[in-house]
Formats: sequence, C-alpha cells, structure tokens
Amino acid sequence: MRKSPSLKPSQARFLKKLFPGDGAVFSPEETLVFGADNSRRFAPPWAVVRPENEDQVRELLAFAHKERIPILGRGRGTNTVGGCTPVHGGVAVSFLRMNAIEEISSDDFLAVCRPGVITGDLQKACAEKGLFYPPDPASAGFSTIGGNAATCAGGMRAVKYGVTRDYVLGLRAVAPGGEIVSTGGRTHKNVAGLDLTRLLAGSEGTLALFTEITLKLLPLPETAATTAAAFAGLDDALRAAQNVFRCGVLPTAMELMTEEVLAAIAPLGAAPWPKTAKAALLLAVDGSAEAVRADGVRLEKALSEAGPVYLETAASPEQEQAVWKLRKLISPASFNIAPDKISDDATFPRGAVGEAVTGIREIAGRAALPILVFGHLGDGNLHVNIMHDASDPDQAARAAKAREHILDLTLKLRGTLSGEHGVGLAKLPYLPRQIGETELALMRRIKAAFDPHGIMNPGKAF
Amino acid sequence: MRKSPSLKPSQARFLKKLFPGDGAVFSPEETLVFGADNSRRFAPPWAVVRPENEDQVRELLAFAHKERIPILGRGRGTNTVGGCTPVHGGVAVSFLRMNAIEEISSDDFLAVCRPGVITGDLQKACAEKGLFYPPDPASAGFSTIGGNAATCAGGMRAVKYGVTRDYVLGLRAVAPGGEIVSTGGRTHKNVAGLDLTRLLAGSEGTLALFTEITLKLLPLPETAATTAAAFAGLDDALRAAQNVFRCGVLPTAMELMTEEVLAAIAPLGAAPWPKTAKAALLLAVDGSAEAVRADGVRLEKALSEAGPVYLETAASPEQEQAVWKLRKLISPASFNIAPDKISDDATFPRGAVGEAVTGIREIAGRAALPILVFGHLGDGNLHVNIMHDASDPDQAARAAKAREHILDLTLKLRGTLSGEHGVGLAKLPYLPRQIGETELALMRRIKAAFDPHGIMNPGKAF
Repeated sequence: MRKSPSLKPSQARFLKKLFPGDGAVFSPEETLVFGADNSRRFAPPWAVVRPENEDQVRELLAFAHKERIPILGRGRGTNTVGGCTPVHGGVAVSFLRMNAIEEISSDDFLAVCRPGVITGDLQKACAEKGLFYPPDPASAGFSTIGGNAATCAGGMRAVKYGVTRDYVLGLRAVAPGGEIVSTGGRTHKNVAGLDLTRLLAGSEGTLALFTEITLKLLPLPETAATTAAAFAGLDDALRAAQNVFRCGVLPTAMELMTEEVLAAIAPLGAAPWPKTAKAALLLAVDGSAEAVRADGVRLEKALSEAGPVYLETAASPEQEQAVWKLRKLISPASFNIAPDKISDDATFPRGAVGEAVTGIREIAGRAALPILVFGHLGDGNLHVNIMHDASDPDQAARAAKAREHILDLTLKLRGTLSGEHGVGLAKLPYLPRQIGETELALMRRIKAAFDPHGIMNPGKAF
Repeated sequence: MRKSPSLKPSQARFLKKLFPGDGAVFSPEETLVFGADNSRRFAPPWAVVRPENEDQVRELLAFAHKERIPILGRGRGTNTVGGCTPVHGGVAVSFLRMNAIEEISSDDFLAVCRPGVITGDLQKACAEKGLFYPPDPASAGFSTIGGNAATCAGGMRAVKYGVTRDYVLGLRAVAPGGEIVSTGGRTHKNVAGLDLTRLLAGSEGTLALFTEITLKLLPLPETAATTAAAFAGLDDALRAAQNVFRCGVLPTAMELMTEEVLAAIAPLGAAPWPKTAKAALLLAVDGSAEAVRADGVRLEKALSEAGPVYLETAASPEQEQAVWKLRKLISPASFNIAPDKISDDATFPRGAVGEAVTGIREIAGRAALPILVFGHLGDGNLHVNIMHDASDPDQAARAAKAREHILDLTLKLRGTLSGEHGVGLAKLPYLPRQIGETELALMRRIKAAFDPHGIMNPGKAF
C-alpha cells in the first residue's frame, strides 16, 4: 500500500466527475463523521463518495485499483471494532443512497436488497407480507443490510435461526478493478462451485463491495412469547439454561444478565424480579399460537426446576416489550458506572459460559474495575464490557490489561475472540493468538485473489 | 498436471512404507471399486491408501505435493456426479479407517468426528444423548460425515434445518504440502477472519483433505409427525404447499411426488391414496409433543384448503415409516421403467417449481422418454431422473439432449444446476452456463492458494 496522506488533484477531479454534486465530498467538516464508527476509533478519510448505482461503484473500483487508493465500504457505521475507520486513509464509500428493497417475493421466499437498506426496514416490509427475515442484530433499527452481510451480523435470534451468513443466498459485488462478481442466486440450496457467497459474507470489506444482496426469508411465525426468569445465583441460571435445552424446545433467544448487570440497570428501570436476584434469563419462543403456548409451559417447567426467585411469561405485548426494554437498558446504564468501556464479544463453547463468567469476575477483581457481562447465552456469545475512565491513565492501563486477560481466558476455554462483531482493527493484534500462521497466510492469499493491490479496507480483519 | 498413467516405483515404495499391510493397495482387483462412485463413472486409480491417523495424511500430502500426484479423498463413494472418479489417475484416499466419533458434548452441543464416521451412526449416537444432528441426506445410512462435509450434503430436513454447511463449526484439514489447516472451532458463532470453514465445506475435495470435523448439534426434538396428502393435480399440490408456508408452521420436510412417480411406485407399494391422485406431498413437523400436535392440525387445515383427494397424519410410528417408505421406493421403482437414468438435482426458486415440472414434462414428451420428478419441494430442490436404455444409442442420445434442455430450463427459471449433489464431473461442462468467467477465475485462484500444483481432485467441481 502506498501511504499517501491524501488524494492527488487528478484523483479528486475524477471522483468529483463520477459523483456529481454532494456525491463526493472532501472537506474535513464533511468527511469527519466518516472517519470513525461505533468503536470511536478515528482516522480521516481523503474523501467520501455516495454511489447511487452499481455503475458508479464499478468505475470507482476500476480507478481505485489502478491508482492504489484504499476503499472503505460503509453503511451506518455501527461497527464496533473500527472496521469503518480509514487507518490508511482512502475513500469512504457510503452506501446509504443505494437503499432500495428491489423485491420481496412471497413465492420464492427471498428479498433482493441494495446494501444501504436498513435491516429493521426490511424486517418490517417482510412482516407486512407474512415473511420473516430472522437475523436481528441489536443495531437492526439503524444498521444496514450491506454492513450486516459484510460482518456476518448475529443478534439474539441466532440460537434458533442462525446468523446473517445463513440467509445470504446470493451477492452481486464489485471487486477491485471494477469487475462484477455475481455469486449464488435465488435458490435456497446451491452447491455449484466454491461457496463465494459465504466467503464474501463476513469478509469485513476486505474483498469486494456489495451492490445487491439476495436474502432467504422464512414464513413469519404467527406469534412469539417472552419468558423472564431470575435466580439467586449464576449457577442456578446456567442450570436452568441447560434444562431448557433438554426440554425439547429450541428457544428463539436466550439472554443472560449477570449480577453486575442487574445492579447496573436497577436504578434505571423497574425490573420485575426481587432484589435477591443475582442472574436473569430472558427467553423467547416463536411459532404457531398453539405451539408457542405449549412451548411456554415447557419452558416455565424447565426453568422452574432450577429454583428461580422470579419466573413469568409476558401476558401482553406491552409486558413483553417491558422485558426486552430491560435488555436494551444495559448499554446506557453502563455509562452510569464509568464513562468509557472496552467492549468485546468473546464467544465460548456453550458449556464453558459458567467458567467464563467466573473467570471474568476474577479478572475484574484483580483489575479493580467493573466488568459487565451479558449476552447471547444460547450460543455462548457474551458481551463483555470493561468499564473505566480512559482519561485516567492508570485505569486505562488496567482496562487494557484486563482485556488481554479476558482474551487469553477466551482462548483457554476454546472460545473465539469474536462471535459477531468481527475483527476490524480492535482485535487484529490478538488474532494470531487464535488463528495460526498457515490459516492467516491462506486468508491473505485468498484476499490477493480478489484484491492484488490490497486496496480493500487495508489493515483490517486478518 | 502431469498425466502419468501410473505411479513410479519409488512412489509406490513410499506409499507402501507409509501405509503398511493392506493400508496401501495397487492391484486392479483391489483398487477397481475405488475408481467409481454412484455416478457409475469409472477411471482406475493408481493406488488406494487407507490412513488411520492425521500424520499419515500429512506425510501423504507432503509427498503428493512434491511429486505432483493427484489425490482423491473418499468416504463411501455415494457421490452421484463422479466426484470420486480419478479421471486424471492418482491415489484414492479412503477415510473409512478414520471413523471415530471423538466426542459428543451435551454441554457444548457439538460432535467431533473423524471423516469416516457414517452419518447415520452419528445421528443415532447423538439421539442417545438427547442431541440432534439435523442434516439427513438420503444416503445418511451409509455415507460419511467427511463426504457430507466435502459436498455440503443436503437432504429432506433442509427446509427447516439447513444443510451440512450450516452445521460445520470447525475443520482440521490437510492441505497439499502437508500443512494442517485448522478452521473455526467449538463455538456456535464465530467471525474471526475469513470463513475458511464454509469455503472448505462443499469444496468437493479440491482444496484439502478433512481429518476432523466439529459439528453443531441441536436439542433433540421430542417428537415428529408425518402427514401425507394427495391431490387430483400438480397445481393443487403446489397450492397446498404455498398454504403450508403461509400457515405459520415451518415443516421439517416437504417432499413432492409427481404423477409419473406415483405411477412408478404404484406396483411396488401399497400407496394409501386413491388412483385419482396425480401428485402427493409428504410432510414432517417436529418439536415438543404439544407443538407437533398443534402444528399437525394447522398443517392439515392448510393442506385441506387445496382440496386433497387424500389427507392423513400418521397415527403411529409404523404408519409414519410406511409413508416414508413410499419415498424410498422411488429409486428402485425407477429401474422398472428403464435400466438407466440420468439423475440431476436441478434446484429452482421455490415459486418456480410448478413451471419447472411443467417444462420438464414437455421435455419428456419431446424426448419420448419417461422423466421422473420428485424431491424437496420445500426448497425447490427437485430430483429429475431421465429414464432410458443406455445400450440403445438413440435413447441415449435423446436422454443426453433432454438433460441439456432441463439444464437450460433450470437456468432460464433462475435455478442452479446443483442444489445438493455438487458439480463433480457430471455437471462441469454445463457450469459455465451458470457461473461467469470472472467467478470461475476467482475460484481457480482460491484453489491455487491451497493447491498451487492442482493435485486435489483434478478436473472436478469448477
């Protein structure tokens, strides 16, 4: 990679011509917000462009390939690991103007989207036709399908329904040089050739830019139900979770809130459980009305065998929303504890979650910092938030060290450094602890097959 | 690729030493059966080796890489597209001695297998622990997990549960040169680095040999139920299928039998429906007992709205088996029609299945050959069998031409040449009609990243 600090005048002229009006912007005031994402890592882009069609993306990537200009695809910038941060400069490509839902087919059970479609908008449009797009990252209300596909976004429903990768049937993408790469298609099963679709899904913008995404849909479940249970201790909650998995019901979601999290949200919301609660599980099931009713009874039985101090299935949509609102309080509540956090989505083999939480508590004790642990217990995908004040160098150092220890613990328990956020910049230094040199070298050779000059999101992911 | 007709003496000596006793065999009598698969395509291998551990596989691939010897991994050879046929000669590597189920974890919900484990054996071993390995290719009783992973095998349960790829959490594989490639792991979610796991799954032996496969498991559904419905015409059956998808129940399986198939199996089995039946659907649902009961009622209602001439949910396991036995009769019954068949698994967008069946009927009429169409209606994955007598050159030519027309029809309806069987040899000539030169070139470059000398299953897949 060339490390030029900015565009040459001829390059800027090219971009202005290709993206007329405010389709290309260059001033720091206009490009500033495209230099960061939800990780708060910042580096200024040289320019921001806003394609409105695939042809512009092709011409852009033909030019950038020839001129060796770094290219960073971008939806709403909700990435938490610096995936959108232009650490090597370059052009940020905002897909928010390519935001049409081209098709929702009730016959083929699929949707065809441009990358800038907001995931929540797609979910709603599908639901109106009795169809269901299951992936539901916490950011669904504002993140884009393009970003979800680029990072293989997860979310709460993954326990039953899997992650974004499992719904991407086909892609149109533009590779460096401007060639269209068309993968997969409109069929729910497809094994023709190497699986470029799933290779591109989750590749964090390092291979190509997506211009069209074909997504598998399911029939919309008639209804869903939410059950909340609270326990006097973590062990009871984990035993309850195992009971659930053994009762013949596969829940849509199974979220864990640990003691520290319950304490953090207590001042903010009216949690329904008593103060003796030291762990809570939030569960959802979905399906036909009768199945949901029956599964709810089973779920309650499985949970009650672990001796909860609170157990209730929401009786109305309002009660249901109140339960999930508790889950959404965690992030705002965390900032009442400390102004900064290091967030990881360390993911463990399902059976190792108890050991993981205990180990993280010990690390918190040694670091003398509060660490909030919650998340998708159903697939071992914890969200670990090391709360600290980054303006205090000692706290910042202890937080950084605690993170190292948590990542070490994750690998010791045979987990993965990222279950759903991706590697980006934030986890890149740690990746060689998990992935060997042989595998990293293979990834780099595969990248070179798409991007020989290394212009796609350089310095990220692997 | 070197096109040597056989091994050099020094190479044979190496193999004999690495695989003592009957671990390496060379005589035509002993290697003959390793020259073909269920496609009936034959080419003799130069030798067959039977590794018992990963170290042998490493040494083999280090040697073969250096000496440019083609390598063909192989389980039970149930491949239907010539994937196991050594068209460029080389060494067939039988994994049937690496057949240990290393672990089934009720805590982590995963199994760790060697490639030679029979899929049905794994399913049974899981069920004994209350766990469920959903992929269920028709060959599950005798095909291997290694072969299933290499081809991304599908099967009837894919409607609800997806295909093999969706269950492969991690792989250990040996690449040419003898390097171990370790991908994924024991977590149900994982987005660290490029997704080598799903790239390898379905790569048809063209990249590496698998030595260990980690598979995601689900809780075993408590029970399942089977409903059979027959209709006076195909349109009614397709309308019934659409009703099912709109009734809020996602069936485990939804199989279609067309008029020609009903006629073929009629003499062999006691089909429960009247002779007026011109299409049948076989459906399964699973889950908790109450959910299955409730979903069964809904399913019957959805089906009955399309006016079936027969509709019954099996009342006992015996009745249930009788229904699925009908499905299994199709293959033997087909050989009562003609001694040979060209089998394809053309897969269509779900909504195009009606048009596909009609179009195939027209092709059958023009070819004056019986074509049996049945299969996984739920995901548009049809099995199309062009029945003919290959010893009659005219019939053989008409069958070949009919196949071309069916593949053209498949692409016209935006389907895929293969939903679950893979490309192998059989579909390779047709692949460029579906996949463009850009994408094929990418696949070849990715292959070169693993296998620069092209020794892995040469002449196959893409």
